[in-house]
Amino acid sequence: MPLYFITGSANKFAEAKAILGDIKQLNEELPEIQEVDAKKIIKAKLDAAMQMREGELIVEDTSLYFDCLCGLPGPLIKWFFLSMGNEGLWSIAEKMGNTKAEARTLIGYADKEGNMHFFEGSMKGTIVAPRGDRDFGWSPIFQPEGHEKTFGEMNQEEKNGISMRRIALEQLQEFLER
Amino acid sequence: MPLYFITGSANKFAEAKAILGDIKQLNEELPEIQEVDAKKIIKAKLDAAMQMREGELIVEDTSLYFDCLCGLPGPLIKWFFLSMGNEGLWSIAEKMGNTKAEARTLIGYADKEGNMHFFEGSMKGTIVAPRGDRDFGWSPIFQPEGHEKTFGEMNQEEKNGISMRRIALEQLQEFLER
Repeated sequence: MPLYFITGSANKFAEAKAILGDIKQLNEELPEIQEVDAKKIIKAKLDAAMQMREGELIVEDTSLYFDCLCGLPGPLIKWFFLSMGNEGLWSIAEKMGNTKAEARTLIGYADKEGNMHFFEGSMKGTIVAPRGDRDFGWSPIFQPEGHEKTFGEMNQEEKNGISMRRIALEQLQEFLER
Repeated sequence: MPLYFITGSANKFAEAKAILGDIKQLNEELPEIQEVDAKKIIKAKLDAAMQMREGELIVEDTSLYFDCLCGLPGPLIKWFFLSMGNEGLWSIAEKMGNTKAEARTLIGYADKEGNMHFFEGSMKGTIVAPRGDRDFGWSPIFQPEGHEKTFGEMNQEEKNGISMRRIALEQLQEFLER
């Protein structure tokens, strides 16, 4: 039975497939509970997914945590982005006088027995005035530590080479190989 | 059949009972979808409530909307409050240089036929450094327009006399009397 990655994003699926190999995309909208704890969100999504489909399943959450907002927006980034856009997000960090942030991916994996396993990757970085491709959410305002470019200025390959999603996916890959 | 107000808050229930008269409290936790549109949240809650119980039902959402955050936190106020507290909320408005805000109550009412009706009350005000009773969420940082006190400094009677919840409840009361 194949391993299904449940996501609506072709890019996220391609990134996962490059690392995990033989996986299939399942483009299903899973309900998202109102929470700031990514693990609870992912757990609820896996629960919902396991009602829909048997076998091995993965779901993921990638969120952006601002130091100046005590960790918000976190998983609420979608609503901040829709309400304020990248310019607004940048202006919060700038005006609050603290541009430190962390980008985190949490992957939830349900094995054949329905047990759940979690893998997290994170990157520290800085919130900057938007630079680069504006098609990928908050990529233009996140500049990872030790890099001169924002995620929005990196091409897919550069970004996938260093991203928090890669770190989490590699942990899952190691786990699957054991 | 009685009209049920579904809420865990004894204060909110008392305020509603004072205006609507013969209603009963139903202390049930209704699931809250992840949304910034209060109407969608209330609609989903009423849907869930109607699965649980026949008859006339009301649910309510009271949210705080910051001008400087383009309307956030709105219904996400719970998470902002848990993450940052009143001091943190106040520091956002202060540092962003715009302390204007609006407090809004949305009431959803399901009639005997299961049709939904919505009633909104709102108050403009200012976000200030916390003053007054710290037991009621964000009351200490909201000073309604034309008043010298924050909600946190008013007693229950003063607050109920002017609140956005009262405005919404009175609309519902008028509707029920017609």
